[in-house]
Amino acid sequence: MKIQQGRNRENKPLNFAVGPVMMSDEVLEIGSQQIPYFRTAAFSEIVKYNERMYLSLLNAPENSRAVFLTGSGTSAMEAAVINTLDAGDRVLVVNGGTFGSRFCDICDIHSIPHDVIKCEYGKTLTREQLFSYNAHNYTAFLVNLCETSTGVLYDLNLISEFCRLNNIFLIVDAVSAFLCDRIDMSESCADIVITGSQKALALAPGLSLLALNERAVDRVLRNNIKSLYFDLKAYLKDGERGQTPFTPAVGTLLQLHGRLKQIERDGGTDGEIAKCRKRAKYFRDGIKKLPISMFADSPSDCVTSLVLSDTSKSAYNVFETLMNDYNIWVCPNGGELRDKVFRVGHMGALDNTDYDRLIEALGAFFAVDEKVEGG
Amino acid sequence: MKIQQGRNRENKPLNFAVGPVMMSDEVLEIGSQQIPYFRTAAFSEIVKYNERMYLSLLNAPENSRAVFLTGSGTSAMEAAVINTLDAGDRVLVVNGGTFGSRFCDICDIHSIPHDVIKCEYGKTLTREQLFSYNAHNYTAFLVNLCETSTGVLYDLNLISEFCRLNNIFLIVDAVSAFLCDRIDMSESCADIVITGSQKALALAPGLSLLALNERAVDRVLRNNIKSLYFDLKAYLKDGERGQTPFTPAVGTLLQLHGRLKQIERDGGTDGEIAKCRKRAKYFRDGIKKLPISMFADSPSDCVTSLVLSDTSKSAYNVFETLMNDYNIWVCPNGGELRDKVFRVGHMGALDNTDYDRLIEALGAFFAVDEKVEGG
Repeated sequence: MKIQQGRNRENKPLNFAVGPVMMSDEVLEIGSQQIPYFRTAAFSEIVKYNERMYLSLLNAPENSRAVFLTGSGTSAMEAAVINTLDAGDRVLVVNGGTFGSRFCDICDIHSIPHDVIKCEYGKTLTREQLFSYNAHNYTAFLVNLCETSTGVLYDLNLISEFCRLNNIFLIVDAVSAFLCDRIDMSESCADIVITGSQKALALAPGLSLLALNERAVDRVLRNNIKSLYFDLKAYLKDGERGQTPFTPAVGTLLQLHGRLKQIERDGGTDGEIAKCRKRAKYFRDGIKKLPISMFADSPSDCVTSLVLSDTSKSAYNVFETLMNDYNIWVCPNGGELRDKVFRVGHMGALDNTDYDRLIEALGAFFAVDEKVEGG
Repeated sequence: MKIQQGRNRENKPLNFAVGPVMMSDEVLEIGSQQIPYFRTAAFSEIVKYNERMYLSLLNAPENSRAVFLTGSGTSAMEAAVINTLDAGDRVLVVNGGTFGSRFCDICDIHSIPHDVIKCEYGKTLTREQLFSYNAHNYTAFLVNLCETSTGVLYDLNLISEFCRLNNIFLIVDAVSAFLCDRIDMSESCADIVITGSQKALALAPGLSLLALNERAVDRVLRNNIKSLYFDLKAYLKDGERGQTPFTPAVGTLLQLHGRLKQIERDGGTDGEIAKCRKRAKYFRDGIKKLPISMFADSPSDCVTSLVLSDTSKSAYNVFETLMNDYNIWVCPNGGELRDKVFRVGHMGALDNTDYDRLIEALGAFFAVDEKVEGG
């Protein structure tokens, strides 16, 4: 599917969605190669390197482990929950959008008792809100550090303080936040941190990564779950020799290896976060004169969610026009935000000239639009 | 990981494993491209084409549906079982190796009552064996059409006759058999047929395909399962508009689209099966003088499992030597077959010259070996 359509068909397609994102030439080159047989010492070394590096980028404490799960971010969210929590837990879930709601669904399906802190779309979790749940005997906390549907970044320091005080097991969905916003597993008390291949790692989608500290590993080992594919005990065991219990997304694990080497060379987590922040700032500065404003009160640097000043216009139409006329993908919203909000991602191989093209297209969209309205 | 080692480092690596397998240039080219945003009409059309073509290659009856699951073949085996069977079923499982055993594990984990027809490694299921279970009120049947660990192909006509007679729901794991051995969903009474991207479809691993006839779809829709990620109801619903509930392996779905177009041009299922059979025959003819013989009494054309005539030698050593000295991967066995059996695959972009290189290497291995033994 080489999208070549619309007015600017001479322009390459540009993807500002929040996953999959633009991949580097190095990663694409790996995608163009034959995939080797994987039950070998050579491949085990690659998986072991991936594990060490993923844990290192999170500054995970000693004895932490990583698991590579072939599946979407949701598969990892569900695996994390069912491997470490059960009906004996009492869970607090932050729900400020699609992905918070998904954690609630997972708890519902698996009969895990939970209460929900409902955050308004686009609003972060406040200290007042959170601490009203203090000393209520919760045993676990689920949060999407960046609620990707609204672009809100929750305050990990605040959540960490709360969880430490209450001795609560903390599962952080950092699918979008990883390498965009700061996550330190040693400083925070995150017990599990999840990400996906198609976000800031900028690989093909289909692989999820879970980092588990010692406490999380202990919970996994003690738990007997009703799933073969999601039983993390088997992944932890086979992972000791750099293998997985089932055929993994070998190609994506090889891309991950290449990408982690790249990150290691380029300044590690701090380097990646700085690049992402720079892209976000460049874009946010560039649209100041346009009739759109920030939707999230506490924006993550992985994505900018934007609300149209003129409520008679449709945000979904921005997505459609940019795709059809400019070969540019931004990310539309669904549900009740469909016509109000669209999102622009800052993950992946994007540079200032790419954002210039986007800002120009947005400028043209709103100018044309105003002209039509005015005429 | 470009493996360049051993004596013949001028030779490109050759992969005769049973997945991942060698991919065509066309598929590799798709792997080298940027991955588009996927919540679009253009991508939906691709997914819908993939669904139509997968069902057509299986000659699935009207009102059948396909589901694309991001995960290994095991994820699809588990999803098929838990979405259509429950504690009220009485299941018969054919277990002749690793993958039969995996179906048993899945039934155990999910408390699904089942009996096991144990087949000796390398031996097919006989009519006598099977019909001793006739009229025993079984409700479902699970079989790995090709038990990939031993290369045995079970007789789908026989199983079909048995299931029809007993009005039994039939789940066929055709992960390795699809496009190598004949599977017709209209002629047989297979209700679900599963395959994986990294087998005869010769794509990157990480995507599973399930075909469900109307009876299977009905079972899925009636069942309430305890999983979010594996709930096929959501896949069926979103699939109506060519989408998936969670971010899929977009790149692999695009590769699948390219590959299915290729198959459509090249003679469909029959064309693929003929190519696979030709490769299997060429190889099997070529090794007649070597001190190895067929392990399976009823071999699938997707793989040739071989047993060493000299039991003092190790089959695992064949795998290691070919990998280290010839840049060639064959597939080793695990467990009690580790030193007895190795396997050579016939799926993927392999031609006669590739097999010539393998046969030559095997010839050298056994000659050298005999020489050493003789000296």
